[in-house]
Amino acid sequence: MADTDIRRVGILSPGDMGAAIGSVLHQSGLEVLTCLAGRSDLTRLRAEEAGFRGVADEDELVRSVDLVLSVLVPAEAVAVAERIAASMGRTGARPPFADCNAVAPQTVRKIEALIGGAGATFIDAGIIGGPPRAAGGGTRFCCSGPDTSAFEALGRHGLFVRVVGAVIGQASGLKMVYAASTKGTTAVWTELLVAARALGLEDALRAELGTANAVAARELAGIPSMPRRARRWVGEMEEIAATFEGLGLTPRILEGAADLYRFVGETALADQTSREPDPSLDALLEALVAHLKE
Amino acid sequence: MADTDIRRVGILSPGDMGAAIGSVLHQSGLEVLTCLAGRSDLTRLRAEEAGFRGVADEDELVRSVDLVLSVLVPAEAVAVAERIAASMGRTGARPPFADCNAVAPQTVRKIEALIGGAGATFIDAGIIGGPPRAAGGGTRFCCSGPDTSAFEALGRHGLFVRVVGAVIGQASGLKMVYAASTKGTTAVWTELLVAARALGLEDALRAELGTANAVAARELAGIPSMPRRARRWVGEMEEIAATFEGLGLTPRILEGAADLYRFVGETALADQTSREPDPSLDALLEALVAHLKE
Repeated sequence: MADTDIRRVGILSPGDMGAAIGSVLHQSGLEVLTCLAGRSDLTRLRAEEAGFRGVADEDELVRSVDLVLSVLVPAEAVAVAERIAASMGRTGARPPFADCNAVAPQTVRKIEALIGGAGATFIDAGIIGGPPRAAGGGTRFCCSGPDTSAFEALGRHGLFVRVVGAVIGQASGLKMVYAASTKGTTAVWTELLVAARALGLEDALRAELGTANAVAARELAGIPSMPRRARRWVGEMEEIAATFEGLGLTPRILEGAADLYRFVGETALADQTSREPDPSLDALLEALVAHLKE
Repeated sequence: MADTDIRRVGILSPGDMGAAIGSVLHQSGLEVLTCLAGRSDLTRLRAEEAGFRGVADEDELVRSVDLVLSVLVPAEAVAVAERIAASMGRTGARPPFADCNAVAPQTVRKIEALIGGAGATFIDAGIIGGPPRAAGGGTRFCCSGPDTSAFEALGRHGLFVRVVGAVIGQASGLKMVYAASTKGTTAVWTELLVAARALGLEDALRAELGTANAVAARELAGIPSMPRRARRWVGEMEEIAATFEGLGLTPRILEGAADLYRFVGETALADQTSREPDPSLDALLEALVAHLKE
């Protein structure tokens, strides 16, 4: 089934990540559709730039495409799948549906039940890395499920796609453990740097860490691009916590990471967009320590 | 005051870390004393090997030494300071007292009140790195307080000593934020590796991490020596959580790290000693996943 081809892809929704994916697929010759009813002017503008074609509603979307991609914040993943399943029921159109969100395997299994219940093929997918800026960029898409052929076809249209296995939950599980290794450790490092500055111990800490410490250097370098993504990461950390708890492991490390990103999200740092330069680590820590004292 | 010299040091207690410190000081010409009443045969043996001289009780200890070092698990730090303060009250002997434990600045301030109340000089100290194996080894001792001269004198007897500042709470604060960067991130990595193995995704995760990832390589290399120290680290993670909470930051990341080390401490892996070879990462993950399923 790996030779399944697709011509029209529906993306919900054209946010930062969704617009970037749509843009790559559009440049690679696919027609990309989305629903813009009720969306903000920024979202409409981003969708136009990315070459999306707008349709009136989700019923028209499912009737028009060969594959639906759900690319959202984690908290919206189940609600969108419910709406799409309802559209499938009303229209009789049943394109394959891939959930690409950062959600726990148990959340993905709920979505599988909704989409499978509507009679469509369900694909578990995960996105590793930031929004793809061009075909062949560093973003990796992984997928799993009994029939991933429609998603694999995206690998011939500018995306890097890898099949993890045949079971729903594998791709999202991989996304969860990978994100724990990056965003989870970024939370630990951000918290300890804020604490060090609040305690007046930042120079002493840096002396202990040593300038030759590759781990510290890399962790520090990763922090300035975090605040503008912090609000989105709250839900992702909660999904990782749920993944770990479902296995019998403590959820508290990642619940704490969600707390930390919620805290960063309360500051004006989080209002920046990717079009503005990231703050320096120094300015960022200063703002977070000031917020501690509010 | 940095030319204060000392000849006799009391160490409570001669566990792994205390015995190693005592051994270095003994080899560097100091007399090292401890109380062995009620201690296990292993502790007595370790103290003898390290060249400690045993005294009958804490009253005799404070009468006999120029400096008392408290080197314990965090949960015992306040109780030992209470006993030493009582001995100072009974005997009138008031040697400087240095708390070297991994405790929160607010815990250290409680100990300062006890020792200061008994009329002795209190020194906040922190140990960064494992037990010193020989004079000049990699272990770093930091200290802070209005008069740290007695502790600084240890720098002329085989230990690497650095003064962080004049305020009680600075040395312990530095220990807390540094340990968050090492043991806190080790907890995140251990948890996500156990989750990956439990989900059957370990190979897929390693493929995503890439073999060239220096951070991942270093984190993975640090895990096998953790289980034999995991039980001790539980209290230390709780002290870091208290440190962060006292600043207005979330305690949950480090409370979760305590949960993770408690979980590891429930397994037979934690019964190993530093005289035995560490388990392979593979055997360690296998044992932890098996414990998840119990």
